[in-house]
Amino acid sequence: MEIAHPYLLFLGDVPDALAAKTGLGIVDWRRDWCLGQYRLPGCKADAALDEMTPKEAAAAGVRTMVIGAVNAGGVLPEHWVASVVEALEAGLDVASGLHMRLGAIPAIREAAERTGRKLFDVRHSDERFATGKGTKRSGKRLLAVGTDCSVGKKYTALALETAMRARGFDADFRATGQTGIFISGRGVSLDAVVADFISGAAEWISPEADANHWDVIEGQGSLFHPSFAGVTLGLLHGSQPDAFVVCHEPTRKTMRGVSTPLPTIQQVIDMTIACGKLTNPDIRCVGICVNTAALDEAEARRVLEELSAEYGLPACDPVRFGADPVVDRLAEEFGAP
Amino acid sequence: MEIAHPYLLFLGDVPDALAAKTGLGIVDWRRDWCLGQYRLPGCKADAALDEMTPKEAAAAGVRTMVIGAVNAGGVLPEHWVASVVEALEAGLDVASGLHMRLGAIPAIREAAERTGRKLFDVRHSDERFATGKGTKRSGKRLLAVGTDCSVGKKYTALALETAMRARGFDADFRATGQTGIFISGRGVSLDAVVADFISGAAEWISPEADANHWDVIEGQGSLFHPSFAGVTLGLLHGSQPDAFVVCHEPTRKTMRGVSTPLPTIQQVIDMTIACGKLTNPDIRCVGICVNTAALDEAEARRVLEELSAEYGLPACDPVRFGADPVVDRLAEEFGAP
Repeated sequence: MEIAHPYLLFLGDVPDALAAKTGLGIVDWRRDWCLGQYRLPGCKADAALDEMTPKEAAAAGVRTMVIGAVNAGGVLPEHWVASVVEALEAGLDVASGLHMRLGAIPAIREAAERTGRKLFDVRHSDERFATGKGTKRSGKRLLAVGTDCSVGKKYTALALETAMRARGFDADFRATGQTGIFISGRGVSLDAVVADFISGAAEWISPEADANHWDVIEGQGSLFHPSFAGVTLGLLHGSQPDAFVVCHEPTRKTMRGVSTPLPTIQQVIDMTIACGKLTNPDIRCVGICVNTAALDEAEARRVLEELSAEYGLPACDPVRFGADPVVDRLAEEFGAP
Repeated sequence: MEIAHPYLLFLGDVPDALAAKTGLGIVDWRRDWCLGQYRLPGCKADAALDEMTPKEAAAAGVRTMVIGAVNAGGVLPEHWVASVVEALEAGLDVASGLHMRLGAIPAIREAAERTGRKLFDVRHSDERFATGKGTKRSGKRLLAVGTDCSVGKKYTALALETAMRARGFDADFRATGQTGIFISGRGVSLDAVVADFISGAAEWISPEADANHWDVIEGQGSLFHPSFAGVTLGLLHGSQPDAFVVCHEPTRKTMRGVSTPLPTIQQVIDMTIACGKLTNPDIRCVGICVNTAALDEAEARRVLEELSAEYGLPACDPVRFGADPVVDRLAEEFGAP
């Protein structure tokens, strides 16, 4: 799937910014793709974009309305349906990251058929994947792995893409989750793929490329997370990364959603190499990317210095302070562009 | 899902025994559940059961017709549809391990609705799983892992169930693949579960149990198989096994379907412990189960002796020579019943 931009972000009438995390994430990374926001009365989220109706958006050149908000339960509330139909009738495609398919709602399915517009359910790939083969592909790959879920792997990969491009690298972010797909316009929500095809889908996400091209691949889960490690391992094998960074949130005590303690960064490095060398014997760690949002600046810089000294690796907060230390290491180890 | 037995095995008109592997596997392990076979003209597979029509089978007490054969492509050939409808009209449920759902064929769906009989598509669980939690459950668990796919993990688990029961253990085989589900009447085809729920489905397969109860869990794939390791890891985490056996086929040179070389048994033991201790810190290896079908008896016994000496573990071919050496080790380490 390839979702056409510019976007109109639909934020519904959600009660807080957290419920519009997807929409706000798109604005963080693709501000220039977002021409406006469409909100219902009472909406408490604000992406600081121009307010537009679908009709106004279409006139301004918008191609797709992205449902950038969720309500509890992951279903589309009934009182949002009319807005989706309105967008289709204004000539926009509509894209959603909800668990339920847009086409499962008769009024939306019929409106899409009537108008000839496309519905994108980014959690559900219609692509038929092959099983993974493990064969070496040309091009270079960097994967963001983590000590846990939700530690900043997507933002790290996006910040690395930005920093690498600024330094002249030929680099593309590769999305493996719903928000990432909206940000890049393509990709696969790997957690929704049938288990037999995890590594095959990961191979599809990052196909053969020029020898000097870098895919910067969004990670998922953690090899040490008891709920999601299977997805993480399939992604690692299918990505066959030449390089990886370990993403970490230093105030986290237990793995997200479960009572399992957090692994150490060293455990993550060792396990990623032990497993990853199956499809890339030369896999190596090129940095530690820390989400320091919970720390003040002095503390954040101290943590980064300590980690860098302890592991002999560049350590940075790629969003707060930039990803250059990791890009330096990449250039040293794999050559500057 | 719980599939009612006795079974009538439908073998269609397949050209050889390999195409009826599922049906023949059921007979190997549940001969007493199989009252007859139903074959079409030209069928070259033979499960050595009484020939019966669905009507005769129903009269004899059969509850379910199992489609125990596949044709190339995993779809139901059109000329088998009438036989499925015939079975439903005779009052039998029908169970299939094909990739396509029985209910996707209008004539079959309508016949099932008309007769009120059940259709089981064992590759597609209708159960809604939670994500895995990693919380310790009561009861004991043994998992069969492998150096590769298709090395005898299912037959090993079934032979262990038989041998453990013969020695007074309270043991139940737990199926994670289609043939295993027919053999046990329940289970989940883990490779068809959505990736996010692999370990959650594995937790569901092997629920809390009496402290002395053993679940003997069918393994899937291999941690060293680049296509399927994600499934294997999710199964390992969700199973939280106290004990595992490594299954091995000594003449295999590369992993099935890919060009990756086979890992050593030691690599499999080490990686299984390294990963498995996330959800069971006391995980340990209790034996090596070798599929010696390709070796003559003297060679087979020599290989088993050598492996046992090399690893300090019981080594057996559980199908050819029995699983007692592994059961002895289980009794030593965890107590006899």
